[in-house]
Amino acid sequence: MSQSGRLFIVGLGPGSRETMTPQAQQAIAGADLVIGYGAYFVGLADLIGDKETIALPLTQEIERAEIAVEQAARGRTVCVISSGDPGVYGMASLVLETAARLSDDERPDLVVVPGVSAVNACASLLGAPLAHDFAVISLSDLLTPWEKIERRLVAAAEADFVIALYNPQSERRNWQYARAQAIFAAHRDDETPVGIVRSAFRPDQQIQLTTIAGMAEAPVDMLSTIIVGNSQTRRFADTLVTPRGYLDSPREKSPAP
Amino acid sequence: MSQSGRLFIVGLGPGSRETMTPQAQQAIAGADLVIGYGAYFVGLADLIGDKETIALPLTQEIERAEIAVEQAARGRTVCVISSGDPGVYGMASLVLETAARLSDDERPDLVVVPGVSAVNACASLLGAPLAHDFAVISLSDLLTPWEKIERRLVAAAEADFVIALYNPQSERRNWQYARAQAIFAAHRDDETPVGIVRSAFRPDQQIQLTTIAGMAEAPVDMLSTIIVGNSQTRRFADTLVTPRGYLDSPREKSPAP
Repeated sequence: MSQSGRLFIVGLGPGSRETMTPQAQQAIAGADLVIGYGAYFVGLADLIGDKETIALPLTQEIERAEIAVEQAARGRTVCVISSGDPGVYGMASLVLETAARLSDDERPDLVVVPGVSAVNACASLLGAPLAHDFAVISLSDLLTPWEKIERRLVAAAEADFVIALYNPQSERRNWQYARAQAIFAAHRDDETPVGIVRSAFRPDQQIQLTTIAGMAEAPVDMLSTIIVGNSQTRRFADTLVTPRGYLDSPREKSPAP
Repeated sequence: MSQSGRLFIVGLGPGSRETMTPQAQQAIAGADLVIGYGAYFVGLADLIGDKETIALPLTQEIERAEIAVEQAARGRTVCVISSGDPGVYGMASLVLETAARLSDDERPDLVVVPGVSAVNACASLLGAPLAHDFAVISLSDLLTPWEKIERRLVAAAEADFVIALYNPQSERRNWQYARAQAIFAAHRDDETPVGIVRSAFRPDQQIQLTTIAGMAEAPVDMLSTIIVGNSQTRRFADTLVTPRGYLDSPREKSPAP
């Protein structure tokens, strides 16, 4: 029989408290138990106080989800914290899949609390590169066959999407980023603007403006997000902007709705 | 000569104050002048107080951007407010393009304040449909040739992206949504889960779970966001989940980084 537990999967946003929503802060402050990757607890001390916390390292995502679901099913109020938006390469899908194994009676209430996603945070620091249709692709082939990732890179490049890359490179995955760059170079002008942001809204934030030709030489790692412009993206001063087309339209042509 | 004005392009998030970041709230509270579409001011009265405000209707995006840039160039602190994330089909690109016409000396400081994007807000209400690679496409062909939009729909459908649709239908644009549905039906199983969210995090919020076959009959308008699952997306109880693959992997295979 259900004990009416509640399970929140909470997006912390990109890093600083100023970019974390009140809803996320309230969910953490109201929990009995907070579960996450250890580094996520830095800066949350005032919200967490003397609550019970469980910090498990990267690679223990399944364990985090199982403990969270089990504890919430016992009637506790549990928060699983995830950086950025928890629905984008975050903990939300794994926690929901794990909870789906329980019967309707056993399953706790599940609430996904959205956050400012890394792609939006990085874009804001670059200007407005995402202002037209865009595709978000992870280059990690640990859980996805590379052939599928490459098919998506080619499709997005051919159809002139702005493209955001997550998880571009790690110590063990060292050729996928170069392969992605080669696909972009085959479909777009070498001078297409590219922005690379590392640790957005954190103290060690780094921003680099380059091009498809230049991105090959740029140092990237698991903390980097790369945004590759489409055929319309332009560099204005120190910003990247993808126009929506307003300024190319006759003034009398109403652009909305 | 620069008067050192500042211009913030601020994302309000999907609707409720709980989903608006502290950074956004502070930017509004600190402004001399707040500019936006009239409906955006509802619920911001405590932040705005007796500040000067300029409310211009939809279709006057260019005017909003020009006034904002001009006023900030005179030394004022100006906020342009935009729902969701201002970089995603929002005001950020238009304001930056407008500011780019000024010389470096004349141009005010420009800050894009990211927000919880509609796609993340809608996904959170549906469960975790965006948990793998996804594409965001606007069906509005007022500023973009339909051929380009259709090319993107086909590319995203073929490459098995989760697909989010913005601006699906208005009174004047009444066939594009049906055309998009036909493209999805040609590339994916009819029973592929689809979620439709209207007015996320607002009092009149509506959530509908359907399929590619069923989406054709669903009522949608400019306030609806549609999320079409990929080949892996599943419906669990009343949520849509796109697995990341953790639970299909051998347990001993580390999924990160």
